[in-house]
Amino acid sequence: MQFLFSFDAAEELKDDISDKNHELVLIRDLNLVDEIWGESRPEPPKEQTRVHGIKYAGVDVPSKLSFVRSHLTENGCDAVVISLLDEVAWLLNMRGSDVPNSPVFYSYLIVENNTATLFVDNNKVSKDVLAHLEKAGVNLKPYEAILSNVERLAENGAKLWLDSSSINAAIAHVFRSSCDRYVKKRGKTDRQIGKESSSDKPTTRSSGIQNGTLNALYKASPVTLAKAVKNDAEIEGMKSSHLRDAAALAEFWCWLEGEIDKSVSLTEVQVAEKLLEFRQKQDGFTDTSFDTISGYGANGAIIHYRPTPQSCSFVKSDNLFLLDSGAQYIDGTTDITRTVHFGEPSPRQKECFTRVLQGHIALDQAVFPERTPGFVLDVLARSSLWKIGLDYRHGTGHGVGAALNVHEGPQSISYRYGNLTALQKGMIVSNEPGYYEDNSFGIRIENLLLVKEVNLPNSFGGVSYLGFEKLTFVPIQSKLMSLSLLSPSEINWINEYHEEVWEKVSPLLNGHSRDWLWKNTRPL
Amino acid sequence: MQFLFSFDAAEELKDDISDKNHELVLIRDLNLVDEIWGESRPEPPKEQTRVHGIKYAGVDVPSKLSFVRSHLTENGCDAVVISLLDEVAWLLNMRGSDVPNSPVFYSYLIVENNTATLFVDNNKVSKDVLAHLEKAGVNLKPYEAILSNVERLAENGAKLWLDSSSINAAIAHVFRSSCDRYVKKRGKTDRQIGKESSSDKPTTRSSGIQNGTLNALYKASPVTLAKAVKNDAEIEGMKSSHLRDAAALAEFWCWLEGEIDKSVSLTEVQVAEKLLEFRQKQDGFTDTSFDTISGYGANGAIIHYRPTPQSCSFVKSDNLFLLDSGAQYIDGTTDITRTVHFGEPSPRQKECFTRVLQGHIALDQAVFPERTPGFVLDVLARSSLWKIGLDYRHGTGHGVGAALNVHEGPQSISYRYGNLTALQKGMIVSNEPGYYEDNSFGIRIENLLLVKEVNLPNSFGGVSYLGFEKLTFVPIQSKLMSLSLLSPSEINWINEYHEEVWEKVSPLLNGHSRDWLWKNTRPL
Repeated sequence: MQFLFSFDAAEELKDDISDKNHELVLIRDLNLVDEIWGESRPEPPKEQTRVHGIKYAGVDVPSKLSFVRSHLTENGCDAVVISLLDEVAWLLNMRGSDVPNSPVFYSYLIVENNTATLFVDNNKVSKDVLAHLEKAGVNLKPYEAILSNVERLAENGAKLWLDSSSINAAIAHVFRSSCDRYVKKRGKTDRQIGKESSSDKPTTRSSGIQNGTLNALYKASPVTLAKAVKNDAEIEGMKSSHLRDAAALAEFWCWLEGEIDKSVSLTEVQVAEKLLEFRQKQDGFTDTSFDTISGYGANGAIIHYRPTPQSCSFVKSDNLFLLDSGAQYIDGTTDITRTVHFGEPSPRQKECFTRVLQGHIALDQAVFPERTPGFVLDVLARSSLWKIGLDYRHGTGHGVGAALNVHEGPQSISYRYGNLTALQKGMIVSNEPGYYEDNSFGIRIENLLLVKEVNLPNSFGGVSYLGFEKLTFVPIQSKLMSLSLLSPSEINWINEYHEEVWEKVSPLLNGHSRDWLWKNTRPL
Repeated sequence: MQFLFSFDAAEELKDDISDKNHELVLIRDLNLVDEIWGESRPEPPKEQTRVHGIKYAGVDVPSKLSFVRSHLTENGCDAVVISLLDEVAWLLNMRGSDVPNSPVFYSYLIVENNTATLFVDNNKVSKDVLAHLEKAGVNLKPYEAILSNVERLAENGAKLWLDSSSINAAIAHVFRSSCDRYVKKRGKTDRQIGKESSSDKPTTRSSGIQNGTLNALYKASPVTLAKAVKNDAEIEGMKSSHLRDAAALAEFWCWLEGEIDKSVSLTEVQVAEKLLEFRQKQDGFTDTSFDTISGYGANGAIIHYRPTPQSCSFVKSDNLFLLDSGAQYIDGTTDITRTVHFGEPSPRQKECFTRVLQGHIALDQAVFPERTPGFVLDVLARSSLWKIGLDYRHGTGHGVGAALNVHEGPQSISYRYGNLTALQKGMIVSNEPGYYEDNSFGIRIENLLLVKEVNLPNSFGGVSYLGFEKLTFVPIQSKLMSLSLLSPSEINWINEYHEEVWEKVSPLLNGHSRDWLWKNTRPL
């Protein structure tokens, strides 16, 4: 169990239950849940890993390890244990498929000043991957050896960097108790031999040894921010994969409109499956990036709706259809939401859709000084809805990985004002305001945006000013727009966006899909 | 000195110097600064106080005292010491003139469950004021008696509410040391008579006595928020005084334009003095509400510029003139900034002015759900400037008192994200974005706004939605607007505002000033 709780979460649980006179007992050598599973516990996934080529990764593993090591030095640490799977994958330019929707693999990584060790099931490592790791100076050890290696670090007196928000409780506790044990043991030995510990023992650094609380640095991983700020190759891959994804979506929407016109009965699940088919035909497709939210009518109002074949609606032409989906490609990760109506939208639906769109446009066009936290921009996406007393109960934007997790930190754009992380050039965020009318319909319009530096005539305060570049190029249904609500500059935004969609995506299409794209990118 | 530092500030100073092995010694019976003054220390002001009539205050003193007492009960306190002068004035419906620009008087107030005592120089209290206080059940004591009365509270075992951000260090320390002394003394007596303290001593509440740290509640004063949320009479007074102020300003701007046209030489100080003359002619004028910022050209770029007769510029027609001023009236407090050009503004000045105006309009038009802190709206006032890489280094809005201090808390609209106070119906805030080009010119456009509930077709989440109502009605110079930058809805806002200015203020004017107002409120 202690492998499933972060150190922070376990500490919080411990505090909470100790208030009620209960004690949290950590059991190392026995997993009580496994005892219950007995023989019926499924095997852990044995999927192969693969090298994430330098063409997509942009920076090689030795450079990334040096970066981590410079942080170790700066912070007076000897080693860091990385347990977030996307951080391991990013650092080692590797990808896997152990977890649905996320191209990661079960593993731990310990980076020390002179060595780096990947803890992973040997079966996952092909010859190519092995060569890649050897070249980067990364050793391999079995996945299960992580705890004994953390013990070894403790015994060697290493000062360990642990991100307590992500490191599991097992690792943190083993390190702490090993340090404490070793401190006691050394103390005894020192007293027995009647002198201070000598400095001529190369395998232990007894001069530095302290107890486990003092010898750990609990601090956010240096990898989190580095991974969030994309390099040129990652940006290139994101752009390219988004165009292929856009082509798949154009084909899909063209097909779906046709089917609905022919009154073909299709469920929300069938529609999502068909979308997957179109994406699978694109180069480099590997997986969906999350479970598709395919919500017709009232189902669209359930923010995290997931249709199942047993109980889902048919997609018809008398209400709104919200489709939030994404894909993993070898070079990038996508996440897009469009809301459409195949018949005649009501004035109410058009007004709500238009106000969501106005929020989307306002955020898309934002320009802001560096060091601005994302939450500052959240109001831009909401104010058009607020003007008529509407709102939505989710954040406006999350970070997105490059050929990695579709949700990643540390940045966000949210009405929760606690996240002070500044948006930085190279970060990717979603722009997804919405509006949900319970038991009636849901609206969300989502593009991914790249944070970029903007060239302006002034730079007051000598700082850089940042803005967004769109990554997503799929038409927004103009039928749902109430033109009288839109300002000339908003209409301009829509026309320019659609023109860009046509220019970028039409070369990837032909036949009906190309016609569909043409029809759906005409100026208002 | 300890009367001049808040408890919080003194504690901070104590901590800071103790780090360097210095000690902060509090001296009660001797004021070292007074020793240096000797005979030459000016007498404290002896200005008369006056009753702030119920017509303007809206709520009588007994009701306000009950409100404070209900907070005492809720918090298990026996008394609160109010030392903020505007809080005393607000609670007792009194005004004074001891402090330039603020209609307050030197005093302390102790509110207990059954009594209230005002500590003030007797000479300040006329018969009328005395009758007013007696009717409200408020006792009078000399100003200097505050410390001995705080001691008495300590000896009686009273639990005292102190707002540590505003209470001076002298009061907090006297209370603490008196409690400690009394605890020791009681302890001794109890031991001498060999029993627990008896409960039959009516003058002391020995059962409740604790040391001074435990017996004080350090918490924001209950008055701060109550004072910030204006009642109907206060709102009425603010509206009415703003119209008279607007009339004075129209007369002033009309006069100044004429003088500049005739090439009369006028300094920034002379212009400010003339403005004061126009205001003095208005009913109920009592004072300026702060030192007028009259800044021509480069001086306008100094955010808190204050011209002096010895060194100030002439106001001419080849640069911008920024005028930030305000008045105290018997029924309200004003604060307004206008920026004008008497000649030909440069395209740069017009662009900057227009973008400041766009920010002003965006904030003015904001609608937002209740519980929104002011900082959330700050970006609305900045984004038009950010779009070309400009910004300003001050907050966008501060609270304003009703016939009280021109700056008051707890709300603000600022890019400093620490103030989580939600804007509430009845609060008044300034809306004053600006732009300052060092050594060149300054621009600021400031109106005061009343937070009000807005009637909307929806109320998502079952909450109220709030917006602003303008209090300030003075034309904004259209010569400085770059029409090509303004959206139709912004132009609409300007025309509607000017129409409202004409309708509300023209009845108070005649002759040239009325003509000036007509000319300056024509639609764009």
